[in-house]
Parts: sequence; structure tokens; C-alpha cells
Amino acid sequence: MSIIEQLTESLRCLPGVGPKTAQRLVYYFLKNHRKQALILAKNLDEAMNTVIQCEVCNNFAVSEICTICKNPNRNRDLLCIIEQPTDLLAIEQSHTFNGYYFILTGKISPIDGIGIHDIGLNKLERYLKNEAVREVIIALTPSLETQATLQYIQHIVSTYPVKLSQLAQGVPTGSELQFLDPITISTAMKNRHLIDA
Amino acid sequence: MSIIEQLTESLRCLPGVGPKTAQRLVYYFLKNHRKQALILAKNLDEAMNTVIQCEVCNNFAVSEICTICKNPNRNRDLLCIIEQPTDLLAIEQSHTFNGYYFILTGKISPIDGIGIHDIGLNKLERYLKNEAVREVIIALTPSLETQATLQYIQHIVSTYPVKLSQLAQGVPTGSELQFLDPITISTAMKNRHLIDA
Repeated sequence: MSIIEQLTESLRCLPGVGPKTAQRLVYYFLKNHRKQALILAKNLDEAMNTVIQCEVCNNFAVSEICTICKNPNRNRDLLCIIEQPTDLLAIEQSHTFNGYYFILTGKISPIDGIGIHDIGLNKLERYLKNEAVREVIIALTPSLETQATLQYIQHIVSTYPVKLSQLAQGVPTGSELQFLDPITISTAMKNRHLIDA
Repeated sequence: MSIIEQLTESLRCLPGVGPKTAQRLVYYFLKNHRKQALILAKNLDEAMNTVIQCEVCNNFAVSEICTICKNPNRNRDLLCIIEQPTDLLAIEQSHTFNGYYFILTGKISPIDGIGIHDIGLNKLERYLKNEAVREVIIALTPSLETQATLQYIQHIVSTYPVKLSQLAQGVPTGSELQFLDPITISTAMKNRHLIDA
């Protein structure tokens, strides 16, 4: 296999890139974007070899402790439990939270063989033991697996003097009701609130 | 800038990838696709550093002469003139041509400052001088620039005992007339042919 074919093949690791698109990308790089492609190659290599998981919160980090956990200027009272590092970015971009995060390494799912010991709950317990957290905010995507995971978190949190809360569920901004799933609509209906007349 | 941010930034050299998608790609690689990303980095690096242009036909190649120009089992009588290496792949995949190719390095476009000396026509003339070509097939995308380019090719070819032909223009398979441009429709109308009753 020539290096052109090898590159085409390896570009298919990008999500949504089939053989045609991969081919087009190869020629795109070779024709006018060699310099950028070389920088990309260098950064890919470095990132894959150096980025690790934060020992405290499971976020991606370049040292043992991530930049957020290291930051002493955030609110130690609040701990937000999320599913993945991209959720952290989304919350940070909303500028509504300045506590700390804890990223689960999965959600309990007996079908997939993921039990309570696989999602990093021990680490969460250690966190609660070490830090004077006053409120744990659950920011997991609502789903069936979340319900099971939630129960275990509730169980752990109950042994500490900590409040437990969850992001409000309902209709997101800009969405059309016709495209929303029935559970979201029924939750939004149940949690409806009065508007002051 | 951390390596995560650097990688996010450099992924934006991919066509159609904005800041959000770049971010998602970084986490996609970091989470479950480190091995593939490392292979991609290696292949990108190698391809950008080793792939050159074929001295004969301008196709991408890993040695001075590309694999097609090196192949002695193709038909020396036929030379197909195309715009870019991806066109070569498209024709090869149609399995209807087993001659050789010549890839222009551009199309004449006075507005963009691209003149007759910028599109590799000297190389084409050398090709015709050295090889006993009997038919030159023009397979350029129909457009205004193509017309100007075509005239120069015609001029060069006319000094050799070579037939000049062009791919048929018309309605492509599977297309709907409503989405075709007026020039394509008028060409197809002009070149219509009788169906045996």
C-alpha cells in the first residue's frame, strides 16, 4: 500500500469520513495544505502521547491535576457531576458555574456490563471525604442509565452533610416541540410553573 | 496555549471543521481513538514529506515517475487531459480508459493572473513530442476558463498528427433536470440524438 493509500485509510478514523471523503482530504492536504497537515500531525502525536486523566476529577489534563482542580479561586462548596469532558466545556461556556467538576467514567448499564465499580464512584467518595463540598449538582443527560447511576450517587452523598440537586429538565431554548421526545415534553408539562399575571 | 487547545486549533485546517467540531474531535481522539490518531499523525507526516509530483504527468507520486506513467501495459495511443489527481481516480474507477493521463496545474484565468505559462502546457508539449500519442481526450470540467485553456491545447496539439476529442457533455445519470444549470441543459438539448423507433 502506498503512503497515499495508507493516509486515506487512516483518515477514515475521523467520525463520518468514508472512503470518498478521505480521498478528497488527502488531495486537499497534498495540494495546498502541507504545512497545516504537518502541524496537525505534530499536535496529534503530542496530544495523544501526553494528555492524561486528572487524578481528582477525571478531566483531561497535561499534568496529574487539571487546571480547574488546581485553580484555588473557584467555589469549593459546589461540585458538579458530569459525564464527559465536553460537558465541562459546555458548562464553562455558559458562565453560570464556578465550582469544581467530577467526571464519571461511565454510566451504570447492566446490559453493557458496566457496574457501580466501573464508573469511578470510589473516586467520588474520596472527593467528598477530602473536600468540604456543600452541594453536589447532577448534570447528567436524562436517560434510563442515568436513573440507576443517580441512585448510587444519592446513596454515596447521603452519608455526607451535602445537598444534592439536579439540572432542571424541560424544553431547551430554540427547540421546536414537534422534534422533542415524549419524555422531555411530559417532564416539562409536569414541572410547568405559573406565570405571574 | 495547552496542547489540547493547540490540537483543537490545528484540526480546523480540515475543510468544514469549525471550533465546536474541532473540540469534539479532540475529545473523540483522546477518549477512545488514541491509537488511530497516532497512526494518522504518522501517515500525515510521512505523506506530506514524501509525496511529490510525477515528472511526466503531474500526478502525485512517491517516486519521480508515478505508478500509472511507469505501467507499460496501458495504451500509449491515448492521453487524457484532466484538472486534478482526483479526476484521475474518478476516471480509473469508471474502468473505461486505459491510456495515460496529463494533469494540468491550473486553468487559464486572466482574472486570477493565471496565464498559459502557469498551467504546465510546456510539459504537455514535451509529452506529445516524446510519445506517439494518437488521440488526446479533454476531460476538463466545462466552464469559461476551460474554453480559453482548450484553445491553447488545441493550438499545441494541432502541430502533431493527433486527434483531439472531448468528453460528451449532457445530463448526468441520476440527476434531476430541475437542479441542472441552463448551459448543461442547452448543451444536452443541442446534442440530443434520435432514438431508434
